[in-house]
Amino acid sequence: MSFARLQEKIDALKNPTVAGLDPDLEHIPPQVLEKYYKEHGETLEAASMAVMEFNCGLIDALSDIVPAVKPQSAYYEILGPYGVMALHKTCEYAKSKGMYVIVDGKRNDIGSTASAYSTAYLGAVKIGSTEYKPFDVDALTVNAYLGSDGIKPFIETAVKYDKAVFALVKTSNPSAGELQDKLIGNGAQGDGSPVLSEKSTGEPSPCALYTAVGDLMEEISKETIDKNGYSCVGAVVGATYPEEAKLLRERLKHTFFLVPGYGAQGGSAETAANTFDKNGKGAIVNSSRAIIAAWKKTGGDYKAAAREEALKMRDELRKVVKNST
Amino acid sequence: MSFARLQEKIDALKNPTVAGLDPDLEHIPPQVLEKYYKEHGETLEAASMAVMEFNCGLIDALSDIVPAVKPQSAYYEILGPYGVMALHKTCEYAKSKGMYVIVDGKRNDIGSTASAYSTAYLGAVKIGSTEYKPFDVDALTVNAYLGSDGIKPFIETAVKYDKAVFALVKTSNPSAGELQDKLIGNGAQGDGSPVLSEKSTGEPSPCALYTAVGDLMEEISKETIDKNGYSCVGAVVGATYPEEAKLLRERLKHTFFLVPGYGAQGGSAETAANTFDKNGKGAIVNSSRAIIAAWKKTGGDYKAAAREEALKMRDELRKVVKNST
Repeated sequence: MSFARLQEKIDALKNPTVAGLDPDLEHIPPQVLEKYYKEHGETLEAASMAVMEFNCGLIDALSDIVPAVKPQSAYYEILGPYGVMALHKTCEYAKSKGMYVIVDGKRNDIGSTASAYSTAYLGAVKIGSTEYKPFDVDALTVNAYLGSDGIKPFIETAVKYDKAVFALVKTSNPSAGELQDKLIGNGAQGDGSPVLSEKSTGEPSPCALYTAVGDLMEEISKETIDKNGYSCVGAVVGATYPEEAKLLRERLKHTFFLVPGYGAQGGSAETAANTFDKNGKGAIVNSSRAIIAAWKKTGGDYKAAAREEALKMRDELRKVVKNST
Repeated sequence: MSFARLQEKIDALKNPTVAGLDPDLEHIPPQVLEKYYKEHGETLEAASMAVMEFNCGLIDALSDIVPAVKPQSAYYEILGPYGVMALHKTCEYAKSKGMYVIVDGKRNDIGSTASAYSTAYLGAVKIGSTEYKPFDVDALTVNAYLGSDGIKPFIETAVKYDKAVFALVKTSNPSAGELQDKLIGNGAQGDGSPVLSEKSTGEPSPCALYTAVGDLMEEISKETIDKNGYSCVGAVVGATYPEEAKLLRERLKHTFFLVPGYGAQGGSAETAANTFDKNGKGAIVNSSRAIIAAWKKTGGDYKAAAREEALKMRDELRKVVKNST
């Protein structure tokens, strides 16, 4: 179920890595862009074609060593509808190569609108009497600020189609704590410093907002726990906050973690290691720029550079994650 | 600047209403759908064409009485890339008819990714040496859970291109309070009941999370206040929580409100009235289903039914909002 398929792919390649496909045009080798600009002019459509070639090249270079890709929707939407077409084709191509596909869209809404998003990415829609799966990816990132109304429609779709979501819990960015670390509950301090408490045993104890988000996600998804012990609602937990990650790992026993912040943002294999369970499972670490734009540092072919960087990351993670070798 | 353009349109039509274009296929008259299914088969592309015809009809019926439209991105993404094409064309058509266009995408991310979203909807991207405005709408809804890192890139783009965003503060759904009402700060009670305090004067006082989100949005956008006293970061404040809306209106003096929850969700003109400032400005009330699916109740032409419902809503709001007649 849901994350079980992801864990299988991770185990098969002994690599808990997801490659972030964030094709900012600056990350694409100029010769790839120029080829399409020459053929089709400097248009959004030409840029979308270049994105596709770039992504297919990366997928070809990575699919036998990296189990999953995470296209970041913003970098496709920035090219308008043609860009979204490239997102769709990228997902299709990655799936055809056996990769698990997580669309990083951080979608969020309520009721029938949340249902529409879940159908778009994870489910199927009826057009007359014909059924279509619009994007048909394996997982989607979501934002839980609207509460359980906003997540339950995703759970329904995930259960029906064997898919999953990752809710933002503790993000990797510097200002993550401005809201996420706010203390809530009895005895909360007003200074905004993060405190991670043990789960309440009757009397509510102070905890940071992000732990409340994590708790809520565990609560509403508890009926969906798979054979590995994980529900279909995972959590985004940044590698840049290793202490918080460690406490969240202990607290959220049924939550699969998607871990951004490795590499370019400052997280390391050691800090990411905190997000794995005692069997070395239950988490996947993302790297985007460091892999897809590796050619900028090394020169030469972008595919070879991406593969080399991905192998390096795999080997670093293997050193610190239990049972991953 | 930013919301000044919206306020001008509202003043010109004496109508602080935005029509939500949420083209769930169930809201589209069967004969519109059938026409395209017959020509193009039961495909996502055909459904997208039907959405376009439906939206254009609504825009034609509303543009001389309603100042703004708010397409909800989920109902376009559910049709895949063709649906996003229909979103793009819908925005273009509404703008050509003089309407202010708010894309309800609740987008959120950090740093360069937030920049990419802001560029996609509000700004311009360079393809080689040619500049394109991918969606070029007037405003976008955003989610602030990631903190100021996630909103500042939108502010930058909004200032540069005279655009705006609405951040989710207090949403209209039943479970909104699960996280948004959590008490934070000194003396916070752990029972989760909403408390709205006055702004702190030194010592932090307990307040609900959503007030902290509102405060943060005011703080980071204070350099962008326009001639009417509003910054380029507005807030989504549900009409379904009138007491909270009243207190937020008093607290967030420089924040333009987008008010969902009117009609189908249970909010009324009286409850929405709390979101306007003392001059009857600074807010716009959304209605989606009640307008676009009015034909289901009345029978007959969907355009005429939508127009009649929009006029009714306008007249109801005029009764309770100061200076709006």
